[in-house]
Amino acid sequence: MIVLFTDFGLEGPYTGQMKAVLHRAAPGVASVDLFADAPDGNVKASAYLLAAYAAWFAPPAVFLAVVDPGVGGARPAVIVEADGRWYVGPGNGLFELVQRRAARSRCWDIDLKPQHLSASFHGRDLFAPVAAMLAVGEPPPGRPRADDADRRPDWPDDLREIVYIDHYGNALTGLRAPLLPADAKLAVAGRVLGRARTFSDLLPGSAFWYENSNGLAEIAVNQGRADRELGLAIGTPVGVVS
Amino acid sequence: MIVLFTDFGLEGPYTGQMKAVLHRAAPGVASVDLFADAPDGNVKASAYLLAAYAAWFAPPAVFLAVVDPGVGGARPAVIVEADGRWYVGPGNGLFELVQRRAARSRCWDIDLKPQHLSASFHGRDLFAPVAAMLAVGEPPPGRPRADDADRRPDWPDDLREIVYIDHYGNALTGLRAPLLPADAKLAVAGRVLGRARTFSDLLPGSAFWYENSNGLAEIAVNQGRADRELGLAIGTPVGVVS
Amino acid sequence: MIVLFTDFGLEGPYTGQMKAVLHRAAPGVASVDLFADAPDGNVKASAYLLAAYAAWFAPPAVFLAVVDPGVGGARPAVIVEADGRWYVGPGNGLFELVQRRAARSRCWDIDLKPQHLSASFHGRDLFAPVAAMLAVGEPPPGRPRADDADRRPDWPDDLREIVYIDHYGNALTGLRAPLLPADAKLAVAGRVLGRARTFSDLLPGSAFWYENSNGLAEIAVNQGRADRELGLAIGTPVGVVS
Repeated sequence: MIVLFTDFGLEGPYTGQMKAVLHRAAPGVASVDLFADAPDGNVKASAYLLAAYAAWFAPPAVFLAVVDPGVGGARPAVIVEADGRWYVGPGNGLFELVQRRAARSRCWDIDLKPQHLSASFHGRDLFAPVAAMLAVGEPPPGRPRADDADRRPDWPDDLREIVYIDHYGNALTGLRAPLLPADAKLAVAGRVLGRARTFSDLLPGSAFWYENSNGLAEIAVNQGRADRELGLAIGTPVGVVS
Repeated sequence: MIVLFTDFGLEGPYTGQMKAVLHRAAPGVASVDLFADAPDGNVKASAYLLAAYAAWFAPPAVFLAVVDPGVGGARPAVIVEADGRWYVGPGNGLFELVQRRAARSRCWDIDLKPQHLSASFHGRDLFAPVAAMLAVGEPPPGRPRADDADRRPDWPDDLREIVYIDHYGNALTGLRAPLLPADAKLAVAGRVLGRARTFSDLLPGSAFWYENSNGLAEIAVNQGRADRELGLAIGTPVGVVS
Repeated sequence: MIVLFTDFGLEGPYTGQMKAVLHRAAPGVASVDLFADAPDGNVKASAYLLAAYAAWFAPPAVFLAVVDPGVGGARPAVIVEADGRWYVGPGNGLFELVQRRAARSRCWDIDLKPQHLSASFHGRDLFAPVAAMLAVGEPPPGRPRADDADRRPDWPDDLREIVYIDHYGNALTGLRAPLLPADAKLAVAGRVLGRARTFSDLLPGSAFWYENSNGLAEIAVNQGRADRELGLAIGTPVGVVS
């Protein structure tokens, strides 16, 4: 299975052209759209989101992940193998949390030279062909990375910020809920919010946080939109009070 | 074929994670996105929309249908078989019109106990595995329902309201056009609209209603947006004048 | 492979119902969403966009292309074969540039008579069944066109207008970049913009044009939105200064 994680948006030809490459090079392999709306050009927030959602997929899923504000520039192009899952994309920190949380991980510099490599669409011309190769069981077309230009050791293990706003207006944090104290409260936008098991436990209009279905601490308002009612956006700081 | 009908929106990971489950559990079965933007949390409008659009699919299509404002609460989780089509989702009225319009229907309480059942994402953890089982020909994993908690006998046979606004600004009603008198007019937002066969029969800017390609009465403005020009939204009442 | 190019939007049931037809009639053939947001009802802009993006796909791809403001009216329904690629849709000019740029092309009037042909959804009821037939290798179900009602000889070879705004706010023109002088500048919305290789060559906030990954001249602002910052929309005129 090939899983797509990008900030390409839902519109336009970008995801479709990548999928056309995947269909040609890995026929019969299912491709799944996980996020096409990862935080726009925000590699750091995306890295925490990807690590939380990738863990749900059984190995050996292949993640084609592109949040790449520096396309055409000098950042490396990498393949990461972490606990049996494969990741292909820019070496700009996007895989930092995946690697850090893995019991075992390896990284390669892609050395595939495609016939046509556009300056602005490496997702289609470089990363998709590599993802297809991995999905059909070929070895990674690269050489082991020699430096740490793709790593971000200064980033924290969990991110005390909003990393995603979903369709319902719920605000996902970069915090893993199982690592928080059972009675932890979250401080955000001037409010202190208690924990609930899920929506139906609370009165309409109540704001709270809960462990979402992928293990992140998520801020919600029952039958309302937390983003508008609390004034939350990607990057809003979140404090932990316990 | 598995057909998805949800209010999850187009963004985010929800549909993708459900499809990952379907690919794993029913490999090779096509899944089709019918609506990802069913009326948000509006089970009643969704029920009329689903009944109109499901009828177009040849049996034995399996509908994975999730409009579920009470997820995590006490509503039942059900399987419905109606005229050879299968429906899986919350027993909150979503299948009321499908069942009522069927010549023959049956209903089961799902008794599958998945290894991991999140409190907030039954679409992925409970309904998708069941839909996959039905799509590969397994018997419904449930027991016949013993009460009518999933039924809504007080809802009308057709809904005199707008139930959906489409990409073009056209407003779909909950009224089956073939049941309306040939010369029926629709009263909506202070206007009385006549019937037309289709767009090209009228002058640009004209407002009218017509039988859409799935048999619903639909309100449109030729080369315009009916929602903005007439002031229509989901829930706007519609009268029948004949 | 069947490639979808429409102005149906991302929402609603339209693309899903077309894909259900394709899955039934051409099982196992991949279908790819290229554009679901082609310029709304704008056949001319769509024709230049389609010609640029279709060329990227290897023959014998089948394009199911529907931008059809006159559905239900008198425009022909056509099949075009151009340099080994197939196109199915309305004969309203949508395939004008594909045909004009081909070394060799042919055109048929569709004479399929589907059992159920709605007045407003030929994409599902007529064009999708034909696309599926072509994708599985059947001959075109039609007769050679006898007139030029589907052609637009008065349209230019390249369109000096914005034809699409993408997710990042970049503005695609109808101009093929390889045909422009190497030092050409583009005049748009009162500005004259120079050429760059790609984003990372410029300072943040700089406006420029470049050859995009499908060969069109595209106007962008590094780390900004060209549409908002320069005031661009579909139809904005573009001049070539060299």
